[in-house]
Amino acid sequence: MKRLAHFDSRGSFRMADIGGKRITLRKAVAAATVRMSREAIETLRSGRIIKGDAFAAARLAGIQAAKRTSEWIPLCHPIPVQWIDVDCRLVARKPEVEITATAAARWSTGVEMEALTAVAAAALTLYDMCKSIDRGILVKDLRLLSKSGGRSGTWKRETKL
Amino acid sequence: MKRLAHFDSRGSFRMADIGGKRITLRKAVAAATVRMSREAIETLRSGRIIKGDAFAAARLAGIQAAKRTSEWIPLCHPIPVQWIDVDCRLVARKPEVEITATAAARWSTGVEMEALTAVAAAALTLYDMCKSIDRGILVKDLRLLSKSGGRSGTWKRETKL
Amino acid sequence: MKRLAHFDSRGSFRMADIGGKRITLRKAVAAATVRMSREAIETLRSGRIIKGDAFAAARLAGIQAAKRTSEWIPLCHPIPVQWIDVDCRLVARKPEVEITATAAARWSTGVEMEALTAVAAAALTLYDMCKSIDRGILVKDLRLLSKSGGRSGTWKRETKL
Amino acid sequence: MKRLAHFDSRGSFRMADIGGKRITLRKAVAAATVRMSREAIETLRSGRIIKGDAFAAARLAGIQAAKRTSEWIPLCHPIPVQWIDVDCRLVARKPEVEITATAAARWSTGVEMEALTAVAAAALTLYDMCKSIDRGILVKDLRLLSKSGGRSGTWKRETKL
Amino acid sequence: MKRLAHFDSRGSFRMADIGGKRITLRKAVAAATVRMSREAIETLRSGRIIKGDAFAAARLAGIQAAKRTSEWIPLCHPIPVQWIDVDCRLVARKPEVEITATAAARWSTGVEMEALTAVAAAALTLYDMCKSIDRGILVKDLRLLSKSGGRSGTWKRETKL
Amino acid sequence: MKRLAHFDSRGSFRMADIGGKRITLRKAVAAATVRMSREAIETLRSGRIIKGDAFAAARLAGIQAAKRTSEWIPLCHPIPVQWIDVDCRLVARKPEVEITATAAARWSTGVEMEALTAVAAAALTLYDMCKSIDRGILVKDLRLLSKSGGRSGTWKRETKL
Repeated sequence: MKRLAHFDSRGSFRMADIGGKRITLRKAVAAATVRMSREAIETLRSGRIIKGDAFAAARLAGIQAAKRTSEWIPLCHPIPVQWIDVDCRLVARKPEVEITATAAARWSTGVEMEALTAVAAAALTLYDMCKSIDRGILVKDLRLLSKSGGRSGTWKRETKL
Repeated sequence: MKRLAHFDSRGSFRMADIGGKRITLRKAVAAATVRMSREAIETLRSGRIIKGDAFAAARLAGIQAAKRTSEWIPLCHPIPVQWIDVDCRLVARKPEVEITATAAARWSTGVEMEALTAVAAAALTLYDMCKSIDRGILVKDLRLLSKSGGRSGTWKRETKL
Repeated sequence: MKRLAHFDSRGSFRMADIGGKRITLRKAVAAATVRMSREAIETLRSGRIIKGDAFAAARLAGIQAAKRTSEWIPLCHPIPVQWIDVDCRLVARKPEVEITATAAARWSTGVEMEALTAVAAAALTLYDMCKSIDRGILVKDLRLLSKSGGRSGTWKRETKL
Repeated sequence: MKRLAHFDSRGSFRMADIGGKRITLRKAVAAATVRMSREAIETLRSGRIIKGDAFAAARLAGIQAAKRTSEWIPLCHPIPVQWIDVDCRLVARKPEVEITATAAARWSTGVEMEALTAVAAAALTLYDMCKSIDRGILVKDLRLLSKSGGRSGTWKRETKL
Repeated sequence: MKRLAHFDSRGSFRMADIGGKRITLRKAVAAATVRMSREAIETLRSGRIIKGDAFAAARLAGIQAAKRTSEWIPLCHPIPVQWIDVDCRLVARKPEVEITATAAARWSTGVEMEALTAVAAAALTLYDMCKSIDRGILVKDLRLLSKSGGRSGTWKRETKL
Repeated sequence: MKRLAHFDSRGSFRMADIGGKRITLRKAVAAATVRMSREAIETLRSGRIIKGDAFAAARLAGIQAAKRTSEWIPLCHPIPVQWIDVDCRLVARKPEVEITATAAARWSTGVEMEALTAVAAAALTLYDMCKSIDRGILVKDLRLLSKSGGRSGTWKRETKL
């Protein structure tokens, strides 16, 4: 039966004690797809919004939020991350932006939440910048793609969504 | 042609000046669906994790993150919110938790980002607590459901996803 | 029966909706007594620690924490305070420092938590600075002394501790 | 004569340089007693407030505040804590809640302030949730119970309060 | 004799009570000059660093820091700013970047510190991005250019530096 | 050609991956000169403002801001600093205060930004406290004085300003 690190024997939440875990290189990659209206995506593509500038803001928002993941997510440990990378790219032939984030730290617990938080903040920043054109923008499928390091080793998302 | 509040005439991002906007009651409702494995949802349902306790943590995370939306989303204004409400419920016959958040403020700009941020933080908190059972948990369809108040008036999501 | 602003009809916590409350001047005063060993208090009195400097640090810590009360206390609303005042004074003939804090805001909810948070942060800052002399320092009787403004009007602590 | 880590030779406060201290496992336990009116404690006991829900909010507040201790207490170092645990329990035959917190980190300075900050935030969160019933709630005896690790070794509070 | 808002009659610092001040539109403009080596400025000009991208990061840093001015500057009040604008431009014929920031709020105290904080954070962000080329980069003359609103009215910097 | 740690091969900003860098003792010293009017400096000197108290506030602001440098400066890594020291002193025969800050950490990246951020926050805190006497106060020459540790070794500012 799987261990429930965040719950005690009575089923109440708790912060996991990571004192006994080994310090190793941990990595995680997460992603989400931001689907917007044709009008919104054309505004990004056509240059009325400088795409590079919009993506720069989203990427920076992701980096900054990820560094403070333990403030967003109450049971997360503060982790001195060594790298956060956020990438935004227009999807060909679809009114979508794909956001991917990588987090890395040499620490005694994983950085999955850091990668997911980076993607969430970047996606919501894009939403914020484009919402006057399309309030219906959808952040689809915020998800972990892979993680490595630590006792549970490497995990990769198997199924296509 | 729609106004692009967050971009100047050259297409560079900027913070919108909300000085000329009227102070009125602004509300927004957002939602997301957290889909997990049968095993994970059964753990929540069966009591190995106290569902109330897990949902309490997710709800509190949403409230706390929403109050600080302008720290996560770079072009958002600080807004002294008057209410943040986060609700989590198990979806019947599906391995899913539906998270809804409402934000309200009497202010000169809308609270869509506050509602969306509350949902994102609550969803990722659930992910964090259940990830030792299922790393593949998916945060599906983070989206605005409705907003009211301000010059653009009331907006409701029309189409089913 | 008294209203439980922070709990819904089922007894679950919630953030109170302060939208219907009137904006009036709210004030609150809180206090605590920091009791330390004779050795510790003599170090403060005798000048091996510059009392003014130690009290300046404690006062500033109280002011800064109080401005961010809604980050410490999850169900508190962000309140743009107009004044936080923190006072520290040596108690005559006792090895004690009395800390008092006043908070004020023209807002739709009270500032009791701001005053209490200021006192707590100032007291713990004193503890931190003196703990190498006395780890047994006690923060006694952190309490509200009075509050005014709002629907419930003026309240004063009646009984001596 | 005891070393005053937080003051220089002239008596001005300073941040201690922990560069020369050894990285070892540091633990600390702190506590406080929250005394409230009979009416308030009965509301918690009887279920008009869901005790588990109220305690969950207080516990989470303590965990979150402790992770950021160096933001509240100016001369504290940022410490990547490995564990924060907060416990709330009703005291038999007294209108009191006892709050205990444990902090742990493998670091070059102690975690006393983290444990004390967790207790303070949890106690004030309880105050906040119950203050509409009883504004006179008292946070009694916020104190360190024990600490271990580091050059000064193990310390335990000797005297009963 | 000028009033010293931040000091009491004994000369100790205090937070000013802004309760009696009128809510009016407050604006402030601040600036600094970032002087770097020829090599560093050429790297920005020539495109090895995408200038727009570097300036986007600096501008966003300024906006984000300014929203939280009261966290960095201890005696500042939290102010719900309505606008922060940061501009970076290469100075003709000099190895310099001129940074200007404007802050605006309808509030009962001025926004000078918000404008100055925005400039400081933007300038240090530029330093950070270019420091591997030139550690000697100088942030010259961080200063207020003008402020308007409030009892003291309009102020403009008179002398050329 | 010098490495541009904060930009990728296309010239877009990125966070540097410090995973491959060695953990060594890193130190940095930064400074700035705060020039104010004769009237302002005399107020500090004459005791109408308690100089020690004003400098205590500025020093504490610098320490607190430096601990959170990665929140100010978007591409900075969170660094668990071991020491931040801030010094303020009146300059003889000039209406100036010289602020110096030292930062130290045993970490895989340098602490230049921590030292610079400490100086910036301390200088702006002095500005804030004295601005009712002189809005024209100038923060001159915010600069790095030296740094040591890490692959690039020791650097000292060579030229007088």
